Amino acid sequence: MKIGLDMMGGDFAPLEAVKGLQLFLSSQEEAPANVFLFGDEAQVRPLLEEHQVPLDRVTVVHTPQVIGMHEHPTKALKEKQQSSITVGFHFLASGKIDAFISAGNTGAMLVGACYSLKSIEGVLRPTISTIIPKEDGKTGLLLDVGLNADCKPENLNQFALLGSLYAKHILGIEQPRVGLINIGEEEGKGNILAQATYPLLKENNQINFVGNVEGRDVFIDSADVMVCEGFTGNIILKLAESLYDITQRKSIEHEYFDRFNFENYGGTPVLGINKPVIIGHGISHAKAFKNMLSLSSKMINSNLFEQMQQAFAPSALS
Amino acid sequence: MKIGLDMMGGDFAPLEAVKGLQLFLSSQEEAPANVFLFGDEAQVRPLLEEHQVPLDRVTVVHTPQVIGMHEHPTKALKEKQQSSITVGFHFLASGKIDAFISAGNTGAMLVGACYSLKSIEGVLRPTISTIIPKEDGKTGLLLDVGLNADCKPENLNQFALLGSLYAKHILGIEQPRVGLINIGEEEGKGNILAQATYPLLKENNQINFVGNVEGRDVFIDSADVMVCEGFTGNIILKLAESLYDITQRKSIEHEYFDRFNFENYGGTPVLGINKPVIIGHGISHAKAFKNMLSLSSKMINSNLFEQMQQAFAPSALS
Repeated sequence: MKIGLDMMGGDFAPLEAVKGLQLFLSSQEEAPANVFLFGDEAQVRPLLEEHQVPLDRVTVVHTPQVIGMHEHPTKALKEKQQSSITVGFHFLASGKIDAFISAGNTGAMLVGACYSLKSIEGVLRPTISTIIPKEDGKTGLLLDVGLNADCKPENLNQFALLGSLYAKHILGIEQPRVGLINIGEEEGKGNILAQATYPLLKENNQINFVGNVEGRDVFIDSADVMVCEGFTGNIILKLAESLYDITQRKSIEHEYFDRFNFENYGGTPVLGINKPVIIGHGISHAKAFKNMLSLSSKMINSNLFEQMQQAFAPSALS
Repeated sequence: MKIGLDMMGGDFAPLEAVKGLQLFLSSQEEAPANVFLFGDEAQVRPLLEEHQVPLDRVTVVHTPQVIGMHEHPTKALKEKQQSSITVGFHFLASGKIDAFISAGNTGAMLVGACYSLKSIEGVLRPTISTIIPKEDGKTGLLLDVGLNADCKPENLNQFALLGSLYAKHILGIEQPRVGLINIGEEEGKGNILAQATYPLLKENNQINFVGNVEGRDVFIDSADVMVCEGFTGNIILKLAESLYDITQRKSIEHEYFDRFNFENYGGTPVLGINKPVIIGHGISHAKAFKNMLSLSSKMINSNLFEQMQQAFAPSALS
């Protein structure tokens, strides 16, 4: 198993990436993995030694360029052929690594994921999700959270299936309950998109649809997979993230709000493409990098991608 | 000043309505008002005496019918001509009262407000808002929160103006900063609606537009008036309400989350119509009823409606 890690991505790179890598490689729980490190060798090598990263488990791939956090994604990917993100995607597309992780420019990661890799056949639009901590200690999955600001009903129907497979094979939730984010309980409520999506979800026998979920249900255990277009999803995601920050600033200490610390979850995978790509938060620290490495290892070792290919094969959808 | 109050609306009516009325009428801060009480006289009268409501300040209007919380709004308003909501709107439309308040069937209140009253000339769609408690102790206004699930850019532009006038004349915020709820900071970000709305807000010289506000900004003091379509707004509203419930259930006590108790704010006015109509939460208790009475008094005594008429007059918009 070969995992690719962008050492230059995120506000605290490469130091925190190195620290996270060290945590991951020294953990006994993890399956043995080799990690390919994409970055400026002169910066990365001394940190590896300083933090006692086992050098036989890593391969440094020197990439002299960096795509900055605020660069235009498409332009930067095209012009910076020697950047850690560009080279990382080349390695992933050509099979030299099995997964790629970066906490760098989100837009560049999304463009790279969607254009240098192939979508799973039958998937109209890849999607990104977030883990939502539920009041009772469980976790839910919310998607899309920003990759698809405008959606058609069929997109939401596909997100429901992608989310269900991820919830089952990665989060370990059997028969995940799918809820449609909406502004009323009954069928027929909502905006035009939600109204048109409801019957598709209801008729989709590949998922376990449980009906509409409202804003008040997002943080309670009413559904395991919550589906919406990326505009609403991104507002919910960032609002949830801000709750952790606010409670920290106000010194409101409670394990419930600790679970809103999105470092716990590491990053979000891009779902609907044929290889594992994980996008981290710009403010990722060691823990987040460690968790992203663990998640990519889990994604490689699960049969998630096989399951997704089968689920979207024409025979499965008939 | 004559305020109309539906005594039969809400889960704890008429008892909590009577208690709230008593609080309002005994408060020295309030301008003298007479309150018209719409409800079942046999239920209401004994409660008025029991709770020592000054009878010279109230007029009981006997309405033998009640529109239930789950009845179909249009059907119920048409068929129950003797209900407290139907009669209340008749009194308001004919000028016998100056404002009407109910914590009853929200749909019936919205339909009643939009069809028995006139919109302010030039207003395309009336809207409802909610108060959002900000981290620094201030309050913001979010609209629309559910009356308009699908919107056009021009609707959002009008909500921005209606919200600004309400923030100025009722909430006492000079030059309220208007933010567009969006999924990115810069102009050009967002879904099709947000992208098309941004230039309208930017060019609108009747408002103080400060740009996009993201999910993470909703609870911090980045804008006084936050504008979105009613789908996203309703999700945010109900999610914010659920935070109060969750912190209560988890015994997380902090004045910040206390401010998410929406009883503090009483109810939401319907903005864009030519008279004050205030819709309360079904679970309103005495405090909420008292606050709705105070709000309607404030709306009657302010020159909000004159300001709205002037702002939407053709000459003002040129």
